[in-house]
Amino acid sequence: MAVSLAAPPRTLPATRFVDLAQPFSMRRGGVLSSVRVAYETWGRLNAARDNAVLLFTGLSPSAHAASSRADPAPGWWEYMVGPGKPIDTDRFFVVCVNSLGSCFGSTGPATIDAATGKPYGVDFPELTIEDIAAAGHEVMRALAIERPHAVVGASMGGMTALVYAVSHAREVEKLVIISAAARASAFAIAIRSLQREIICSDPAWAGGHYAPDQQPLMGMRLARKLGMISYRSAQEWQQRFGHHEVITRGEQPFGILYEIESYLDYNARKFVGGFDANCYLYLSRSMDLFDLAAHGSSVKAALSKIQARRATIIGVASDVLFPFDQQQELADSMRDAALDVRLLRLNAVNGHDSFLIDHDRFAPVVREVFSELRDRRLG
Amino acid sequence: MAVSLAAPPRTLPATRFVDLAQPFSMRRGGVLSSVRVAYETWGRLNAARDNAVLLFTGLSPSAHAASSRADPAPGWWEYMVGPGKPIDTDRFFVVCVNSLGSCFGSTGPATIDAATGKPYGVDFPELTIEDIAAAGHEVMRALAIERPHAVVGASMGGMTALVYAVSHAREVEKLVIISAAARASAFAIAIRSLQREIICSDPAWAGGHYAPDQQPLMGMRLARKLGMISYRSAQEWQQRFGHHEVITRGEQPFGILYEIESYLDYNARKFVGGFDANCYLYLSRSMDLFDLAAHGSSVKAALSKIQARRATIIGVASDVLFPFDQQQELADSMRDAALDVRLLRLNAVNGHDSFLIDHDRFAPVVREVFSELRDRRLG
Repeated sequence: MAVSLAAPPRTLPATRFVDLAQPFSMRRGGVLSSVRVAYETWGRLNAARDNAVLLFTGLSPSAHAASSRADPAPGWWEYMVGPGKPIDTDRFFVVCVNSLGSCFGSTGPATIDAATGKPYGVDFPELTIEDIAAAGHEVMRALAIERPHAVVGASMGGMTALVYAVSHAREVEKLVIISAAARASAFAIAIRSLQREIICSDPAWAGGHYAPDQQPLMGMRLARKLGMISYRSAQEWQQRFGHHEVITRGEQPFGILYEIESYLDYNARKFVGGFDANCYLYLSRSMDLFDLAAHGSSVKAALSKIQARRATIIGVASDVLFPFDQQQELADSMRDAALDVRLLRLNAVNGHDSFLIDHDRFAPVVREVFSELRDRRLG
Repeated sequence: MAVSLAAPPRTLPATRFVDLAQPFSMRRGGVLSSVRVAYETWGRLNAARDNAVLLFTGLSPSAHAASSRADPAPGWWEYMVGPGKPIDTDRFFVVCVNSLGSCFGSTGPATIDAATGKPYGVDFPELTIEDIAAAGHEVMRALAIERPHAVVGASMGGMTALVYAVSHAREVEKLVIISAAARASAFAIAIRSLQREIICSDPAWAGGHYAPDQQPLMGMRLARKLGMISYRSAQEWQQRFGHHEVITRGEQPFGILYEIESYLDYNARKFVGGFDANCYLYLSRSMDLFDLAAHGSSVKAALSKIQARRATIIGVASDVLFPFDQQQELADSMRDAALDVRLLRLNAVNGHDSFLIDHDRFAPVVREVFSELRDRRLG
């Protein structure tokens, strides 16, 4: 099976792969003849094979959640995963999966389609959160892990963890869902839809048929700025930037004048070039499509399938993309479904992105989840 | 003086004009050799010339706030202005000004520069809220109104009314400020900056040198969608659209699938073509630049110049662009400056746009402002 990757998708030094033996049927139609799922691990799987923590990511990260000997670069959840850290790799075998449809080693729109010799692009079948969860399950199977100790996810990863726990109910012991929801809100769809339209309006997108090294960078940059506006909070920016002007004003009309503009521009430019535009579009749409109620007559009916011993739902007061109401709703539905649920509302100021930034609020909460008395046997 | 207007800027049937006799100096530099200010009026000016209500608009409306015999088309504040309505034109002489820099009759970037025979475009001098207020003051002068009974504005119009009351302190009796602020917030700058960048990234913008009938429609459409996202509220959209899919799905990749996407698209397409892109850019930036503290050592010092008998500040709980904190701050600063201030927080669900939509909440509040006992003499 030949799976090659086009630029800019890239695999990182510690990436491992599962190559599926069978064609992979996508939930909304279409079959991928060959699928590779990239993942990274930390710690050691114990003899009972019951100390695994399966970690799903948000839309844009790779499987590189934390540094390791094989890849000392800091990961996207560096403060959370590692020896002695809240998800303690001295005790747990942590597996982070690169989402199906992404561009960091897993099969996605940027992957070369063996049938044509070109990237799938917009001919990739429609992607759903369920497909991402199923690909993650294939990693568990390949590692012969029947029942992970915990499944953890934030944002899109939280949606993925939810559907994983519904679809593989007997296999999940603990569930940790951060800044996620049972379905996409109209506001979140509006934001993501506009991001996609901005990308598709960039002439360089070329109907999705751009060359891998000719990404629609302008569209990606503007979409990323809109993303950041939705990921952070007005309160945080008011505190950090207020009405402060930059020292050196640009020359072009309507150029950067305020610090907030400079901040957005710096961060957007840092992001683009590292992510394939079509992968972004597919992953973005998969979040819009998500509705847990598709797994039962209602969200509650779907959640009632979960058999996890305990679920922890964490939300952030300043999150506008996945507002706390959605975590409250999730917890209420789980309680109605007779699950043991703990709901936590954190007063972090960094909005939806708080789980990536606010170590002080998130680390103790997640540490507690992973240090309950009954888990000591895992030590 | 020859002032002609390029397409799509247009004057409406009831528009009147003031042509300034003198060149107009802009606050941040530059002089306009000839300036025309468009306005519309309703009701009759009384003999004492003290029953005028001066109305400033938000970013995009024309001076056509309400219908009249001369122009029976509904205005942008139809429920608020008219005979027997909250701003009662049987009692008051209402004057609504088209902002300097706009494209509905007042001089702006879309106006033909007599010196070149072409629209000013990006050669128009930098525009500020102060310039818009000054142009409004010229209308009062031309109508020989020394002291309007009230100055009223919402959103950008609220900023304009504030600076008018500071700059012409002795001339303002009553001040009504709706969903506005003493300065631009970092979040609002982020949104507007991204809107401008989206427009300027449309190849049709052509560095600002597009032909009047070759507007950057794609950029304007996308910017308008972002505008709508900031003008309304997540709560409203969740109630109206939730996760509902449209009946007929489009063919193109990542096309419209959910009702919220269809709604945004319909409204954005309705808007574009009716507004000149450069005018939009200038007015947008003028809001970023606004900081009342420039009129004193602080916002409070600036506000202490106001001599209005009473100020009414109205805000909306669901407004994310001018959140209620900003109206609270404005009212607190005014009280510190020993002004008679009334602050009202309305539980409208339509976000920043509520003043245009929520008749039931806004009409009684504004009616009360204009029907105080002491004003009966104006009847």
